Amino acid sequence: MFNGLSAFPLTPFTPDGDIDDAGFQRLLERLVSAGVDSLGVLGSTGSYAYLTREQRKRVAALAKAQAGTIPMMVSIGAVSTRQVLDLADDAQHAGADGLLLPAMSYQTLTEEEVYGLFDTVSRHVSVPVCVYDNPGTTHFTFSDELHGRIAALPRIGSIKIPGVPAEAAAANARVQQLREKIPATVTLGISGDAFAGLGLNAGCEVWYSVCGGLFPQTAKAITDAAARGDKAQVTALTERLAPLWALFRRHGGSLRVMAAAAGVLGLVSPTCLPRPLKPLSAQDCTEIAAVIEALGLR
Amino acid sequence: MFNGLSAFPLTPFTPDGDIDDAGFQRLLERLVSAGVDSLGVLGSTGSYAYLTREQRKRVAALAKAQAGTIPMMVSIGAVSTRQVLDLADDAQHAGADGLLLPAMSYQTLTEEEVYGLFDTVSRHVSVPVCVYDNPGTTHFTFSDELHGRIAALPRIGSIKIPGVPAEAAAANARVQQLREKIPATVTLGISGDAFAGLGLNAGCEVWYSVCGGLFPQTAKAITDAAARGDKAQVTALTERLAPLWALFRRHGGSLRVMAAAAGVLGLVSPTCLPRPLKPLSAQDCTEIAAVIEALGLR
Repeated sequence: MFNGLSAFPLTPFTPDGDIDDAGFQRLLERLVSAGVDSLGVLGSTGSYAYLTREQRKRVAALAKAQAGTIPMMVSIGAVSTRQVLDLADDAQHAGADGLLLPAMSYQTLTEEEVYGLFDTVSRHVSVPVCVYDNPGTTHFTFSDELHGRIAALPRIGSIKIPGVPAEAAAANARVQQLREKIPATVTLGISGDAFAGLGLNAGCEVWYSVCGGLFPQTAKAITDAAARGDKAQVTALTERLAPLWALFRRHGGSLRVMAAAAGVLGLVSPTCLPRPLKPLSAQDCTEIAAVIEALGLR
Repeated sequence: MFNGLSAFPLTPFTPDGDIDDAGFQRLLERLVSAGVDSLGVLGSTGSYAYLTREQRKRVAALAKAQAGTIPMMVSIGAVSTRQVLDLADDAQHAGADGLLLPAMSYQTLTEEEVYGLFDTVSRHVSVPVCVYDNPGTTHFTFSDELHGRIAALPRIGSIKIPGVPAEAAAANARVQQLREKIPATVTLGISGDAFAGLGLNAGCEVWYSVCGGLFPQTAKAITDAAARGDKAQVTALTERLAPLWALFRRHGGSLRVMAAAAGVLGLVSPTCLPRPLKPLSAQDCTEIAAVIEALGLR
């Protein structure tokens, strides 16, 4: 299941702070219609860190009800191992086909502690696990050696890497370097959407995609080109989206931009982020609407 | 209540990952006997970030039952504002005399978002709030201007600052600079134990103390000297503890060292940290035991 386009939808909130079930279903409908290769629910884009255990159960159940034959991956991130195991049980009970596990930290973690977490979880669960490497939000940085040790554990099926160097030869070298440390059965997936083209052309088998969580057809054109081996098209289609990546950079990451974009499209409330996160300004939304229109994002 | 020695106890866990009620009561007993000025339960040292809502209720109830007339401050940190408000209700229901609120982040927060969090919480609660400034664990850095805006909100009673420059004149200047931005009714409290002497001598009215959570008599001698205005004694007593501060530095902060020390003293299990955190090695514990003995920590 860790191949092609893995689309990460928002978890939208109502203005009162409850989960916006109908809005979430509208977001999922776009992904299912587009035929994405997997759903990545409750990722960072899905605001897993802001939800209670009960809310996370509900989100997974809503997604599974709509997923049809599309595999569903559910993030089980928490700073406590005990809570991660409970969340893994919940996700599997909800029908998760795969689990996404970050090294979420409060106290700074050692490599042995992170290895211990993955060791414990990999022996506890019965579905494949994707290692979520995202130092920007988890504040833990994996070494390649640690990736190799973890990838050799049972059930580990993929590694979601945070990006690659911004130049093709260096990106190729980076992916090759990590590839040499991990079993051939474990796929590598690119995230950090601006790096998608570089990552796919360097040999990543998956795009763990924020853009694809709202604009699945736009994202799928890129992973389809990668599947055909058409590197020039992958590059062209990704570089075309530069105005979107620029918005991500300007607003401290992709989440606030995608939330505003989903509001612009009328799929969710303009205040769909979990507090304390604040929505972007009306002026920012106007600019985002213009980019959606100009690029034909869909 | 935001004066003198505020002692931050560990929340110890059993090897099975449950809260070690008896061990926690033994830790509290030392603090109550020593007559600390307040208890700071469920701080970073109290592993709040690793506990469920139900566990946090239980810890606050255990502490209140033992606190007698000593004021109890309870951390209500969470990344979601909705959860912070629920935790505030729980803490007040358990009898908290004050609340400790960090700007805990997952997505990087803007100043307006953090101000909004404190604004919402300060209007929701009925007991005083201490602002918890700890960029090392929360990954948010307060500007002095933001501190000033938040300190002007209702219910804000103190700011727990993460440290001061490691030289007296610079430490004085730092505290003075922040003091000018905040109302006189809001106290400043030093944390980062190695900075306690510098902070108290620079005019901080409180020591939010990890050391004091296990060695209250040792810590109280320092805050008592500060209360008498005996700066030379404050300096001497703090510098004497340099071997303890060196252990904190070597082990990535104070938590793992204090957990090991509590184990050395036989108060809690040697594996009292919440997973994925791992206990220090037997050799490290031997060295910690030697420092406890040599410094006469108690």
